[in-house]
Amino acid sequence: MAAPVLSFTTDFGRRDPYVGIMEAVVLSLAPNARVLHLAHDLPPFHVPSAALSISGSFTYCPAGSIHVVVVDPGVGSDRAPIAVEGDGHRFVGPDNGVFSAVIDRCERVRAVELAEPRYWRAEVSPTFHGRDIFAPVAAHLARGITFEELGPTRRVESLVRGWPEVRPEPDGGWAGEVVCVDRFGNAITNLRPAPLRGIARLSTGTGAGQSLPVVGHYAEVAVGGALALVGSYGYLEISVREGDAARRFRISPGTPVAWTPN
Amino acid sequence: MAAPVLSFTTDFGRRDPYVGIMEAVVLSLAPNARVLHLAHDLPPFHVPSAALSISGSFTYCPAGSIHVVVVDPGVGSDRAPIAVEGDGHRFVGPDNGVFSAVIDRCERVRAVELAEPRYWRAEVSPTFHGRDIFAPVAAHLARGITFEELGPTRRVESLVRGWPEVRPEPDGGWAGEVVCVDRFGNAITNLRPAPLRGIARLSTGTGAGQSLPVVGHYAEVAVGGALALVGSYGYLEISVREGDAARRFRISPGTPVAWTPN
Amino acid sequence: MAAPVLSFTTDFGRRDPYVGIMEAVVLSLAPNARVLHLAHDLPPFHVPSAALSISGSFTYCPAGSIHVVVVDPGVGSDRAPIAVEGDGHRFVGPDNGVFSAVIDRCERVRAVELAEPRYWRAEVSPTFHGRDIFAPVAAHLARGITFEELGPTRRVESLVRGWPEVRPEPDGGWAGEVVCVDRFGNAITNLRPAPLRGIARLSTGTGAGQSLPVVGHYAEVAVGGALALVGSYGYLEISVREGDAARRFRISPGTPVAWTPN
Repeated sequence: MAAPVLSFTTDFGRRDPYVGIMEAVVLSLAPNARVLHLAHDLPPFHVPSAALSISGSFTYCPAGSIHVVVVDPGVGSDRAPIAVEGDGHRFVGPDNGVFSAVIDRCERVRAVELAEPRYWRAEVSPTFHGRDIFAPVAAHLARGITFEELGPTRRVESLVRGWPEVRPEPDGGWAGEVVCVDRFGNAITNLRPAPLRGIARLSTGTGAGQSLPVVGHYAEVAVGGALALVGSYGYLEISVREGDAARRFRISPGTPVAWTPN
Repeated sequence: MAAPVLSFTTDFGRRDPYVGIMEAVVLSLAPNARVLHLAHDLPPFHVPSAALSISGSFTYCPAGSIHVVVVDPGVGSDRAPIAVEGDGHRFVGPDNGVFSAVIDRCERVRAVELAEPRYWRAEVSPTFHGRDIFAPVAAHLARGITFEELGPTRRVESLVRGWPEVRPEPDGGWAGEVVCVDRFGNAITNLRPAPLRGIARLSTGTGAGQSLPVVGHYAEVAVGGALALVGSYGYLEISVREGDAARRFRISPGTPVAWTPN
Repeated sequence: MAAPVLSFTTDFGRRDPYVGIMEAVVLSLAPNARVLHLAHDLPPFHVPSAALSISGSFTYCPAGSIHVVVVDPGVGSDRAPIAVEGDGHRFVGPDNGVFSAVIDRCERVRAVELAEPRYWRAEVSPTFHGRDIFAPVAAHLARGITFEELGPTRRVESLVRGWPEVRPEPDGGWAGEVVCVDRFGNAITNLRPAPLRGIARLSTGTGAGQSLPVVGHYAEVAVGGALALVGSYGYLEISVREGDAARRFRISPGTPVAWTPN
């Protein structure tokens, strides 16, 4: 039987041992778990980036995978620790919205509040629940405890939202915003245009007012040309072919973007 | 039986293949070893950062783990290659102080000088002992050779120190310094205050003279507020809640910090 | 039997989930594959850096390893997807020169064009062939399909070159250039001097005209001193002992470097 897959998505830096410590905690409890690092060094404390990362990647993991997400500005406060189950995957992390886009994408979703300290480390620090609660809970899931054993059910509608909503526009389009900029400078938005063509517009930054064609692939414009396309996350992205769109247009998470059908 | 765990802590960048090469060397010799990346991209040549990283993380790994630490400005000079054993863990790296904080933390410690080229790669370059000496020695330990087979015993007191010492203060407090700044801007010191409350003081930087309360968790101050707390390393840290303390106070490794009991 | 080793070398950032998605695709198809991360965060779209990274590291992996390289500015255009076999290793990626230095180093080389969609993901996006073609093809190789099954043979001489060539100089030396700068600021060139001693010269930057001795190891110069040496890649590197040569001399990929024998 294949080893259970356990993924990590965090805003911890790989120059700090926090991620390694979480993996060590998992290995100590579930030595045969396979640990997959989805994304680290996410923008510190930025919940929408984490929501985008995990929602855009979990579906590529084998069914039955367990996903730990730790972008947790509220660690040590009264925000709840939770687990979410959707479409055969399980997710563990803080109730601060990091699972909002996952929940939007899944057919069948349920949630529990983590309330059983027997699945945590004996001593829980107020600064590092990734190590003391989320990693050990994930390891116990990998060892075979059931979702229900983690704690009482939470209504999914009661969970904190952490994903910017889109608004319909009078012209039949949608208004949204940039959620995340990747290392190439592609600006990924929260817009899922249908049909896949149309026009994207930035309303702030040096590209304000500029209309970008929604194309099918980078090669439809010249090197250095600006474009929009539905990228590998399934969301509209603002890009420059072989260039850095975020730098050129001075766009960053929160920059408004609108999409209009042709 | 669980696979032997072998960890890496280095100042190599993940954009360079040096870490991957070390892992490849391990896999070639000990295919069933489980490799755990604790920290990379540490400040180049900065021994105290490495000492902090490994001392703050090894205890979370399973007993019997083997830890390779490569922050090695003296590679190719006459600094010795060593191995250290403490509390059921083994450590391999240069004798330049990277294990000082581990040694301080362990109950029973012993050390050897790596002197048996049969456990090294056939050709040892003068620039990359991580690949040619430390990774293969760790792999041989994972395959089952004993600690004594690596070379002659070294007195632990004779090893190079690489950890800034703390000094008692007349007021019953301690004077220490910042060892490392993490990616959130938390400044981790070499102070282990007891009791856990009191006052922390920075003596240089834009926060010079400012008194920071030692709190139990971030949520005891408002967002953006400065504080000190004993963080996940077990050392006093200077932090800003959901902010960057190192940037605000212009503090960096070496900045003096004092702790005073209430 | 040891698990098949599958390596990744990309210009994706670890802050984005693209690498993790590729690993998830591999795990879904070949659950027992061992994934090794050789280098990520390579300079975006910079083919010579990728060529250097993979050529300098694959030989440390076990024979039979499969190496995926994704630095792919032409994704979605008509550049071909290929696989290369050399000296018992197999390589999968775009035909844009990322394998040029590997091919130069191997004794026996052959290549195929990836032309069998049954080894790809069912839907191939125009923006992420790492996920949709290269990772699944590598996973199928790990599961045991033969090299020939991937598609029709390509003449190795017909593949795109992506490696700067060296030119002989009248004085018996060679003219080349900087290919890549590592995180320590070492500038790795495309020069393989023989004999290993001589003089290196930078012709541009603040070190223009300066003669650097080719030494055997860093400790032959004082801390802060400039030098050249044949580093762990097997190529001539310009370095500063415990310093940053690229910053001091303002050198970067493309900077001309010459080597002259003594």
